Amino acid sequence: MNNTALKIQVEKIKVSKIDQVDFDNLSFGSVFSDHMLVCDYKNGSWEAPKIVPYQPISLDPSAKIFHYGQSIFEGMKAYKDENDEIFLFRPLDNCRRLNISAKRMAMPELPEEFFMEGLTALLELDKDWIPRNAGSSLYIRPFMFASGTGFHASPANQYKFIIATAPSGSYFAGKVKVLIEEKYSRSANGGVGYAKAGGNYAGQFYPTQLAVEKGYNQVIWTDDNTHENIEEAGAMNIFVRIGDTLITGPTSDRILDGITRKSILEIAKDEGIATEVRKITVSELVEAAKKGTLKEMFGAGTAAVVSPIATFGYRDTDYDLPELENSYASRLKKRITDIQYNRAEDPFGWRFKV
Amino acid sequence: MNNTALKIQVEKIKVSKIDQVDFDNLSFGSVFSDHMLVCDYKNGSWEAPKIVPYQPISLDPSAKIFHYGQSIFEGMKAYKDENDEIFLFRPLDNCRRLNISAKRMAMPELPEEFFMEGLTALLELDKDWIPRNAGSSLYIRPFMFASGTGFHASPANQYKFIIATAPSGSYFAGKVKVLIEEKYSRSANGGVGYAKAGGNYAGQFYPTQLAVEKGYNQVIWTDDNTHENIEEAGAMNIFVRIGDTLITGPTSDRILDGITRKSILEIAKDEGIATEVRKITVSELVEAAKKGTLKEMFGAGTAAVVSPIATFGYRDTDYDLPELENSYASRLKKRITDIQYNRAEDPFGWRFKV
Repeated sequence: MNNTALKIQVEKIKVSKIDQVDFDNLSFGSVFSDHMLVCDYKNGSWEAPKIVPYQPISLDPSAKIFHYGQSIFEGMKAYKDENDEIFLFRPLDNCRRLNISAKRMAMPELPEEFFMEGLTALLELDKDWIPRNAGSSLYIRPFMFASGTGFHASPANQYKFIIATAPSGSYFAGKVKVLIEEKYSRSANGGVGYAKAGGNYAGQFYPTQLAVEKGYNQVIWTDDNTHENIEEAGAMNIFVRIGDTLITGPTSDRILDGITRKSILEIAKDEGIATEVRKITVSELVEAAKKGTLKEMFGAGTAAVVSPIATFGYRDTDYDLPELENSYASRLKKRITDIQYNRAEDPFGWRFKV
Repeated sequence: MNNTALKIQVEKIKVSKIDQVDFDNLSFGSVFSDHMLVCDYKNGSWEAPKIVPYQPISLDPSAKIFHYGQSIFEGMKAYKDENDEIFLFRPLDNCRRLNISAKRMAMPELPEEFFMEGLTALLELDKDWIPRNAGSSLYIRPFMFASGTGFHASPANQYKFIIATAPSGSYFAGKVKVLIEEKYSRSANGGVGYAKAGGNYAGQFYPTQLAVEKGYNQVIWTDDNTHENIEEAGAMNIFVRIGDTLITGPTSDRILDGITRKSILEIAKDEGIATEVRKITVSELVEAAKKGTLKEMFGAGTAAVVSPIATFGYRDTDYDLPELENSYASRLKKRITDIQYNRAEDPFGWRFKV
């Protein structure tokens, strides 16, 4: 980042919509703040970001977003502490991952200062939209898509980067029941699974619907070749506790390099929890479940933070996980959210004051 | 299809843009006809299609198309014969494949009569936009995307189906040089490769750019596990001629069930050409090239029809294909386009008079 503040043009909303919002009953990502940041890529470069009232986007029907799936996003949160100070969590990591996704999808990388200064300016303007209620936060959605036109199957020549925000309650409620998927897959070797690309999510919906029809909440993705390696849990990274060891799969071109995932690994080490980053097989999981050494499974991601799994299904058998008094999931979730909400020390330097 | 004509509301453009178009110098898919068909899915059902002037689409920034990649499309063409009669080629197959794609991407299936009657009405209204010039046609782009809103990673509750058309010249010019890809992949087993989903295309752009930097035009996709099976050529199906046998890979959940592909197979049989639908390995291809039995390779798809390959590259070696007097590629392309443009008999019943 350079030190010269970027010139961000601001067009304020005439009448705020904030009075229409019930901050005590927020769902996830369905109410949007007054403003958004918009940045256009044209003629080979990014124009200066602007802040404008949250408003519809107008696109030509041949805009490539509609046809060729050039779309990427990030998920972040802004937290307010009891003194109304505002914090982000490792925001530069989101910015850098956005650019990793951009490269894979043949989209232009965004200058880091556009992301960081644009986001900061947006949050300062819409700071009243950041909830104070426990468990609530301002969900931040930076996204980029192809706005350039034409039916030729090739990268667009124009893009839009937008940051929109939504005051939100928690993403999941309660423990989930998951199904280990053996037919459908999330990503290919050499594919785009490591990118936060829109198409990775759309491809999950149908298999997830099938799992829901069978009484599950989510799918556990396995590798597309052997279906023997556990890879992700729905749209989250997955952690497994066998005995007292916390295990997660290694990142790869199929697996997202989750910020919550890597933070949990560091916190676990700091807490003296034994961790392993290695392949986890379905057989190992089933065997551990049968022997009683499978203590916990949970998903990890920005939206839900930690999402404990109560039961996993595999080939018509359900395996229940034990109810633990002092689970790793709850310990790690408390530690990470205490850092995020400025309720505890941050020895890792992850908190970013806005 | 039912026999009752669907009520399609038509709002005509005030002043046609057709006089601004140079029909002798059309590129592919970059000039758009006066009207488009729009159909909205809301509250669990499709509303009646409307024809309106080609115009921008307005969407909420949280519309799921921007975030979760629910987008599918089809590619078709309308042809005009010398009596100005208008024809489509196997249009119901496109309609049915759209619905196969829709199902995989957790999107609502479109009633066939909405597609067929909507398309017919649109073509009748914009018939002057169908070029008469040799090799030119009206490229038709039916597409569907998630217009419903919210940041929750789940299927949208609203969708738009649109048909836009673009008078177009030919897609490719000349023979292409392709690179057999061994690192990047197009699709996973159990993935969405067989659907015409936007994300499948965006994922190809970066590996294609890398191939272009090495002096190739396109990538030949191989399976993501062994990289030993030839699967698609860029965004087209691939055909290989070894000796006098024409071979193409079997369709699967990784490979698109191309309408040009299956038409070419039927025409080849009708022409007495030996055909095989089976896996084609890279080793087989290299060996045949070395022995001189590899006669032809070509891509097949709606946009380019048949796209002959001059050279393929594999692990730093380029293999040139022979120049043939009476190639299968040119024979099959002539036969299929003669049917499409109503210049020859259609024993297959593929031509559809509008």
